[in-house]
Amino acid sequence: MPTASRAEIDAFIVMDVMEAASRAEAAGRHIIHMEVGQPSTPAPPAARAAVAQALESQSLGYTVALGLPALREGIAALYRRWYGIELDPARVVVTAGSSGAFVLAFTALFDAGARVGVTEPGYPSYRQILKALDCVPVGMPTRDAARHVLEPVDVPAGLDGIMVASPANPTGTMLDRDQLGALIAQARAAGTAFISDEIYHGLHYGDRAVCALEIDDDAWVINSFSKYFSMTGWRVGWMVVPERDLRTVERLAQNLFICPPHASQVAALAALSDIEELERLREGYAATRALLLERLPRMGLTRFASPDGAFYVYVDTAHLGDDSRALAAEILDRAGVAVTPGLDFDPARGHRTIRLSYARDRAHVAEGLDRLEAFLKARDARA
Amino acid sequence: MPTASRAEIDAFIVMDVMEAASRAEAAGRHIIHMEVGQPSTPAPPAARAAVAQALESQSLGYTVALGLPALREGIAALYRRWYGIELDPARVVVTAGSSGAFVLAFTALFDAGARVGVTEPGYPSYRQILKALDCVPVGMPTRDAARHVLEPVDVPAGLDGIMVASPANPTGTMLDRDQLGALIAQARAAGTAFISDEIYHGLHYGDRAVCALEIDDDAWVINSFSKYFSMTGWRVGWMVVPERDLRTVERLAQNLFICPPHASQVAALAALSDIEELERLREGYAATRALLLERLPRMGLTRFASPDGAFYVYVDTAHLGDDSRALAAEILDRAGVAVTPGLDFDPARGHRTIRLSYARDRAHVAEGLDRLEAFLKARDARA
Repeated sequence: MPTASRAEIDAFIVMDVMEAASRAEAAGRHIIHMEVGQPSTPAPPAARAAVAQALESQSLGYTVALGLPALREGIAALYRRWYGIELDPARVVVTAGSSGAFVLAFTALFDAGARVGVTEPGYPSYRQILKALDCVPVGMPTRDAARHVLEPVDVPAGLDGIMVASPANPTGTMLDRDQLGALIAQARAAGTAFISDEIYHGLHYGDRAVCALEIDDDAWVINSFSKYFSMTGWRVGWMVVPERDLRTVERLAQNLFICPPHASQVAALAALSDIEELERLREGYAATRALLLERLPRMGLTRFASPDGAFYVYVDTAHLGDDSRALAAEILDRAGVAVTPGLDFDPARGHRTIRLSYARDRAHVAEGLDRLEAFLKARDARA
Repeated sequence: MPTASRAEIDAFIVMDVMEAASRAEAAGRHIIHMEVGQPSTPAPPAARAAVAQALESQSLGYTVALGLPALREGIAALYRRWYGIELDPARVVVTAGSSGAFVLAFTALFDAGARVGVTEPGYPSYRQILKALDCVPVGMPTRDAARHVLEPVDVPAGLDGIMVASPANPTGTMLDRDQLGALIAQARAAGTAFISDEIYHGLHYGDRAVCALEIDDDAWVINSFSKYFSMTGWRVGWMVVPERDLRTVERLAQNLFICPPHASQVAALAALSDIEELERLREGYAATRALLLERLPRMGLTRFASPDGAFYVYVDTAHLGDDSRALAAEILDRAGVAVTPGLDFDPARGHRTIRLSYARDRAHVAEGLDRLEAFLKARDARA
């Protein structure tokens, strides 16, 4: 049986790095994880307690396709808390992680052959999911000088949609209100669907991120409980869609997913209220971020944009060669530190960048920095 | 923004019936649920205990995309136990329910425009997922006289793939080894991908169901923890794929799903061993099935195939009119029993059929039968 040509997508390289790191650990090595974008902390205590109780008292069968009504209301309330927006809970669609939201948004908005702009660098799965759906991802290279923030001039004409993320993965840089507004205005004028990936909202270290809905009620907004809420493995996220598209999205969700995992929805609802724990985690990332900003330049890694949010630093490693995949393998092998080659995020220029995640706790990351520093010194000495 | 034409799919009618039933319950009515194909029992005790323990001891972050290695091994062992097949665990892909498996199989095998055969009647989401992926579902009407079991003569030429289910939804009828073998042989000869939906395996009331892998190692097999294992809301299933397609499926899974829900995988692994509880549930369905087979004919519902497995009876209701959607609404309204109109399963002929699910406990279903009988008597009296 020939495989479908749309299935010929790239691997998600970071997941291959995770596998290689797992193999090294299985072989007895101690590995520092700066590859994957996930907190090492479990779901907040309130979330775990809610699931434990539901295991005793509920059968946890299917929920309705759009998610538990109380969770949709809780998410709408978050928009009031975070942005001062009054959001109708009916417009909130609970999804199987942000991944599930991308699949729903892309199938709802784009037919086969549609051209959708994705930033380079950017989250790799946008591109791969679009390909798997027979759409055409169109790379929009951002500029070093603009801190890799997308600008209207970067957006080619004739797109059916664009995907924008702020704070962005892999750079952590953010669009301010004017920058986001300019992109949305340009998309509106061109009749281009605007999808805003806001998965790193809540994780900011200066001003908070601006939600696309503060500017345009017609934007499609995708978010998740994975990052700020520390619930990656629970696979629960959400999407806010324009009211007129709700029934379309509901039908797609019914058929493609039936419903998001019930226990995860119970966890998510409780997580929304565990503000104290979540803010404590954010303070931890802020401290670890400060450590990186101080130490990376001292080991010769000077070319990166200071991240506004998320938990990544995207570092230019051109002075260490032009094969980031080989470099990442060498760092894993020699230093026992897992990092992600930039090729995951930017097929054109990612051969000279790596992404460092500081989602793990400060001591873990500090040990990683020690190892990286020693590795780079030894490499210099060899050169 | 215009919605994509591929997003113009039908609603999953049973989920709309569920919503209507929920509204009736919210308004204070007592509703009997014979609409939805889910057990009312929670996950097996061992599964719930495993999750409760994992909540205390694990962070439950992302797993690798193909699922926890121990779960893949446990599923492979199930093939030894159920069918006497030696299956390489590497070929087992853990998925976000069978829904996730359909999305992965269809994107791996079929490009936009591919023609894929689906039985009429059959599980409605095959058709809708295919449409959402810009493929072309081709209805394969089965015959009453053949108990709605698909026969080679029903399969049109020129298909890129076919979806076959045994035990089937909505009929519960099964293909025996020769019948399944004939379909597979025909597909092989024509170069047609063969996808076998085996989600109701384990739930048989006479001979066990035959697995497509017993006949052809190249079949794609999809299964789930939702039905036999009583874990619908956990959204965890699996797929067995030919070895040469594994890497393709892995890349799709990495990008489209990242991973199946971690807690659900922990639950699934434990459920595999809770054989005593699972067989107790099956005995319950068998007893409820016997009740239906005895009582339905007595209330004039005589035209249905006796189900070999699953927990459905697909009843011809032509004598009650030719609008099954109106009939289902009338039964919900007057009798307080939720049933699924046949239109969900067969757009051409489902206007004169309904599906009754007996997944709930015997007392619940018995009450539903009492209400149905009274409803039909009163309806007769009015006519």
